[in-house]
Amino acid sequence: MTDEANGMAAAEQEGQAALSFAGAQAKAQVPRRIFGSFVEHLGRCVYGGIYEPGHPKADEDGFRSDVLDLVKQLGVTCVRYPGGNFVSGYKWEDGTGPRELRPVRRDLAWHATETNQMGIDDFYRWSRKAGTEIMLAVNMGTRGMAEALDELEYVNGAPGTALADRRVKNGIPESMGVSMWCIGNEMDGPWQVGHMNAEEYAAAVERTAHAMKLAEPGLELVACGSSSAHMPTFGSWERTVLTKAYANIDFVSCHAYYYERGSASLQDFLAASEDMETFINTVVAAADDARAANQGSKDIALSFDEWGVWNQDVWNGEEDDWKRSKGLHTEPWPQAPHQLEDIYTVADAVVEGSLMITLLSHADRVRSASRAQLVNVIAPIMAEPNGPAWKQTIFYPFAEAAQHVRGSIFVPQVAGPKVATKDYGNVDALKAVASWDGESASGVLLAVNRDVRAAHTVSVDLGSLAAGATVRVKSAQLLHDDDIHATNSAVQPDRVKPQALEAAIGADGKLTFQMPAVSWAAIELGE
Amino acid sequence: MTDEANGMAAAEQEGQAALSFAGAQAKAQVPRRIFGSFVEHLGRCVYGGIYEPGHPKADEDGFRSDVLDLVKQLGVTCVRYPGGNFVSGYKWEDGTGPRELRPVRRDLAWHATETNQMGIDDFYRWSRKAGTEIMLAVNMGTRGMAEALDELEYVNGAPGTALADRRVKNGIPESMGVSMWCIGNEMDGPWQVGHMNAEEYAAAVERTAHAMKLAEPGLELVACGSSSAHMPTFGSWERTVLTKAYANIDFVSCHAYYYERGSASLQDFLAASEDMETFINTVVAAADDARAANQGSKDIALSFDEWGVWNQDVWNGEEDDWKRSKGLHTEPWPQAPHQLEDIYTVADAVVEGSLMITLLSHADRVRSASRAQLVNVIAPIMAEPNGPAWKQTIFYPFAEAAQHVRGSIFVPQVAGPKVATKDYGNVDALKAVASWDGESASGVLLAVNRDVRAAHTVSVDLGSLAAGATVRVKSAQLLHDDDIHATNSAVQPDRVKPQALEAAIGADGKLTFQMPAVSWAAIELGE
Amino acid sequence: MTDEANGMAAAEQEGQAALSFAGAQAKAQVPRRIFGSFVEHLGRCVYGGIYEPGHPKADEDGFRSDVLDLVKQLGVTCVRYPGGNFVSGYKWEDGTGPRELRPVRRDLAWHATETNQMGIDDFYRWSRKAGTEIMLAVNMGTRGMAEALDELEYVNGAPGTALADRRVKNGIPESMGVSMWCIGNEMDGPWQVGHMNAEEYAAAVERTAHAMKLAEPGLELVACGSSSAHMPTFGSWERTVLTKAYANIDFVSCHAYYYERGSASLQDFLAASEDMETFINTVVAAADDARAANQGSKDIALSFDEWGVWNQDVWNGEEDDWKRSKGLHTEPWPQAPHQLEDIYTVADAVVEGSLMITLLSHADRVRSASRAQLVNVIAPIMAEPNGPAWKQTIFYPFAEAAQHVRGSIFVPQVAGPKVATKDYGNVDALKAVASWDGESASGVLLAVNRDVRAAHTVSVDLGSLAAGATVRVKSAQLLHDDDIHATNSAVQPDRVKPQALEAAIGADGKLTFQMPAVSWAAIELGE
Repeated sequence: MTDEANGMAAAEQEGQAALSFAGAQAKAQVPRRIFGSFVEHLGRCVYGGIYEPGHPKADEDGFRSDVLDLVKQLGVTCVRYPGGNFVSGYKWEDGTGPRELRPVRRDLAWHATETNQMGIDDFYRWSRKAGTEIMLAVNMGTRGMAEALDELEYVNGAPGTALADRRVKNGIPESMGVSMWCIGNEMDGPWQVGHMNAEEYAAAVERTAHAMKLAEPGLELVACGSSSAHMPTFGSWERTVLTKAYANIDFVSCHAYYYERGSASLQDFLAASEDMETFINTVVAAADDARAANQGSKDIALSFDEWGVWNQDVWNGEEDDWKRSKGLHTEPWPQAPHQLEDIYTVADAVVEGSLMITLLSHADRVRSASRAQLVNVIAPIMAEPNGPAWKQTIFYPFAEAAQHVRGSIFVPQVAGPKVATKDYGNVDALKAVASWDGESASGVLLAVNRDVRAAHTVSVDLGSLAAGATVRVKSAQLLHDDDIHATNSAVQPDRVKPQALEAAIGADGKLTFQMPAVSWAAIELGE
Repeated sequence: MTDEANGMAAAEQEGQAALSFAGAQAKAQVPRRIFGSFVEHLGRCVYGGIYEPGHPKADEDGFRSDVLDLVKQLGVTCVRYPGGNFVSGYKWEDGTGPRELRPVRRDLAWHATETNQMGIDDFYRWSRKAGTEIMLAVNMGTRGMAEALDELEYVNGAPGTALADRRVKNGIPESMGVSMWCIGNEMDGPWQVGHMNAEEYAAAVERTAHAMKLAEPGLELVACGSSSAHMPTFGSWERTVLTKAYANIDFVSCHAYYYERGSASLQDFLAASEDMETFINTVVAAADDARAANQGSKDIALSFDEWGVWNQDVWNGEEDDWKRSKGLHTEPWPQAPHQLEDIYTVADAVVEGSLMITLLSHADRVRSASRAQLVNVIAPIMAEPNGPAWKQTIFYPFAEAAQHVRGSIFVPQVAGPKVATKDYGNVDALKAVASWDGESASGVLLAVNRDVRAAHTVSVDLGSLAAGATVRVKSAQLLHDDDIHATNSAVQPDRVKPQALEAAIGADGKLTFQMPAVSWAAIELGE
Repeated sequence: MTDEANGMAAAEQEGQAALSFAGAQAKAQVPRRIFGSFVEHLGRCVYGGIYEPGHPKADEDGFRSDVLDLVKQLGVTCVRYPGGNFVSGYKWEDGTGPRELRPVRRDLAWHATETNQMGIDDFYRWSRKAGTEIMLAVNMGTRGMAEALDELEYVNGAPGTALADRRVKNGIPESMGVSMWCIGNEMDGPWQVGHMNAEEYAAAVERTAHAMKLAEPGLELVACGSSSAHMPTFGSWERTVLTKAYANIDFVSCHAYYYERGSASLQDFLAASEDMETFINTVVAAADDARAANQGSKDIALSFDEWGVWNQDVWNGEEDDWKRSKGLHTEPWPQAPHQLEDIYTVADAVVEGSLMITLLSHADRVRSASRAQLVNVIAPIMAEPNGPAWKQTIFYPFAEAAQHVRGSIFVPQVAGPKVATKDYGNVDALKAVASWDGESASGVLLAVNRDVRAAHTVSVDLGSLAAGATVRVKSAQLLHDDDIHATNSAVQPDRVKPQALEAAIGADGKLTFQMPAVSWAAIELGE
């Protein structure tokens, strides 16, 4: 009997998973930015997403109030803007000032026409309505340090200088107060406008970060890490860049996307968080190498600023079609086309739930994250032109974490059934994390059953989770469907949504509940 | 008896050259762009050349119609613009829009004052009148990728974006449809504004080509090769640049100039095409290395975008004088001065004829060429200010090829007299190439007698040239003069021109004719 | 008895110093630019220094006439402008044209608000009034070659081009005639906006210098050397940069600052010129290596364009305070704050005197120098807002040299008392240099007694100094105070100034005088 078969058998036979917080120490305080999202000028994320002036629910600024409501329900804390690949050809000033004077541009990254009817001025107004922090990316593709400094002055500068006064004239007297800035986007990617090798980018980011911190010492700056763990320079890129730019860099970016057809098997897809674990550990090691090389005391944090499920083969297919039509000037350069509008399944939601659990489990180093993206484009929120907006399946695990995870993070010991994967070997069927907030005396346990075949009974030793207090189950919910490919739609917006879950704390103090195959659960606890 | 003496004796004694197309395969289809030329903002090529608004023959755009007529007679297919060294300090937008608003600039490359009264708008209009394709070069000296992208949008973009709409406003509603773009000019040359080493240029051209193809996948992009075969990095430059930029590059540029005083002997000058052969083979080898290193399937073609006879010592002399006068601000910065106005001899014309034969013989890889330049500046066409225009000696071999070479290229076997050179050893006195166009059932044989001492009788086995059809001589002409330094002038514009040549196809099917020492011949054949 | 103790004892016992010009050859002609100074947009050097429009003594341009008078008394020949670190974020065009249209900017280097009420237009006018040459620095931090070329055209170009005509429109019809240009400032310094490593800067400066000389072959261009002899790349930086850029570079910059609290001892501070000697020799060696590597014949000269006494710990303290207050947008960005307003002691003046002697002693290679800075900021001239201006102690040794050193430089042999230092070992207590101007038949002997403990009698064999002529003492002065930390102030502007010194030429033809511990002397000689 092979190891793999052995593992499968074990998982199927046992069906009992034990989580234990006995002796668990708080790993980190929850970083609020870990519940961030991402708005890129891509497809209909901006136009027809957050902004649709003709829509019946558009407010006086042209923002869709139905989308804004869903963003608030989602609990997003911080939004990265305006790209993504888009930013590498972007002129920030194009999106400022009177709308009728703004230039129309070609976006080379997504081969679209950019009207610039939304820009930083507008996004600032939108963010205030959404209650979200802004995380800005500057263009290191066609531009560099000089323009980044100008943008910084426009965005954050106190009135009294030429660029800050231009912002005032554009109707925003106060500093936008943007603290976190990405210095470029995926500059290692051969697809990126103005891509560089590690040495070139290291020099550019070091210089730019230094100058930006001369302007504002308190900024939190993000250097581009690898575009994915599959890049040939993954790891060495981070080491080169962070070693050179250590002094003025606070974060390194991480991007990871997963999807069923891109995985070795459905079971591998469900276990994609294993890949994210390795990813995080690799980047942390590179960052710590850089710290050592600089004899530094500061840890460089991870900004997981693009993550989620993305059916990349669909986009790649579109791109291939487009590249095949190589005639000159025949490309349509569409405005806000339907693009990357992935429809998410229950399985996708469970995977996103497992990725959120992973990020939270590493909250000591992952101090910021942006689920990509927010509306329409690989997004939890869908919005029809002139029509309704609704929640995709993946909305729920994110919203639950963003709304309820507070205080300290605790990572349990897991024992019990294993599942066999091709890429990760035998891994735990269950994955979980918990938070406890002493102030409100409440906590949340998030868990996924990644097993594609079997349900499991989960028994949780709450141990030191609630600091010794006696807790009760305040509420419990389960995301699951017998059809793991079930989805929501404009017509059936509630086809998939969490259901009440039976969960109880027994006389032995153990929390017990059932998780069907491919499911996500959240149990809120309180005194 | 030495080899050299032996060769000379043989050539003098025999006097019989045999060309054979027996078994010759079509080497390539004639690339139309091989009959290209070059217009640079230099001396009087533009101002007082193609453009002279006060001239009696100026048309409504200020273009000299007499020059336009000669350009059409020359048969030019494609014109490179606006440089050359000039482009490395050029701001393309300076030459657009209303003439009265255009800025006057200093041209550092040629130390002249540039009024910008001609620019891309105007050159586009001129090209439509001339019936020529435009090949544009972008500034990689004082500028880079960002400005190249802007220029591309202005030139080719569909209306609806800011830059394309600026073109529309400037009176050109349609896309200019420029397909072929040179990414900089001679960036390896220490004289070049913004020159780079191979690694720096490789990174810059790779990035720029990638972004330009994101904008228009169908573009045909030219990377700078070495400025000449005499550069210390010749060969390695091409290898470095093409290996890095292979994915998005279609052509590599080649530049070669020859002149009598710069040659080891008059006989060496006449045999300069031997140097061009080696040049081509070296660059092809580098390009193929780059293809192999990229595991690619695409051949990178050669764009021989500067070639011809240029008496460089004259210019260098001028430059030395200029550099000697090192006082501050005393340089005159002349407008459109008389500069590089070489007057060409019969010998120069024979050499240019041999270079054209060489380019055509390598038409499988040399897919574009630009004889430098078109008017006044090392040019086949001369134009007096407010006076006449006329043809230089070198006009004729180019015009014959451009007007009549069509269809497939065939390269003959050559046997017979040799000439001794210092730099190339003993080489064939005769050099020839032929084309055959099945559609029109016509062809051309081009030949030069490079021997400075002896006439030769040429016997041609037409073999498989006409695909087995019986052909006749439609016309035959010879360029020769007993004074090989004879030239044309405004006063004697027809001192040198082709004369009728006796050429007959004998009973044995062989084409026979006589070529005096230092002569060029063209025999048109047809069914 | 240790060597050190031995040296000290000898110095104290002997008390007799012998200087000899017997057989001394003229080392170099005095380069006028060696008496240069430096005006940076920093603190109150410009605003409230040379420019204070509301001041009772302000002239029609807003320049303080009292400061101008002191500048003329100081004898400054050439002034470097506008930075320093400031230039690395500077947009030269901001300081041109109508004052009411000039933008207010943030200066990242000194974290101040720059109103741009002074700029190149105004500084040109000031320089004409001061009678000083301008030495300009271009921004290689946030900008590069393209903007440097534009600035050069604006400043020096003959009317008739767009940028030169803009200058004419701004009221300056003539070329400003600026010959000497610094290509960036301290680009090796990690504090510098846009700092680079040696290879990056070498490529940038080579390219920029080449293009600037294409525009004006007669320019004298300065490449950045190391920011100080304490940089880890000192020496190798110079070698890399000068080897690459040799062809078009004329000077390499040297910067050296000294101060008592930054020295190993007071005696070491007094002997700081020993450090400058080593500095000069090291840079000369690197420059000569570069010449050899280029097989060149031209010596690269040293532009000692920042030197003097600067209490850097005061500034560093301020900087630390500022960095500690890391909150966002809380920095005040003051306008022309009191910054780096060092008050100089007698000891400081003696050290500056010794540094001037050192520079003059190396005038064969040090062909330009700029004492940093001119007014208020580590400056010989202080100016109170709306109040008086006065001379600091360091004013005198500079003024004496600038006003009287003419003709040829002679360096004497020194024998006699030694002083023991921690960093330089035992060194001569006396340091001296002399000049002789044949035309006016006059000369100057400059000397310092660097001994912190003992006075010394100085006996000078004038030897070949006056070319054999019999000379007399025309005047003699001494700078000294029993309190070596005595200073001047607005209230006591003449607390410290030179006093008459008894100096006589005896029957033996020897010049004899007394120098107290820590003193500076100047003896003017004539026929």
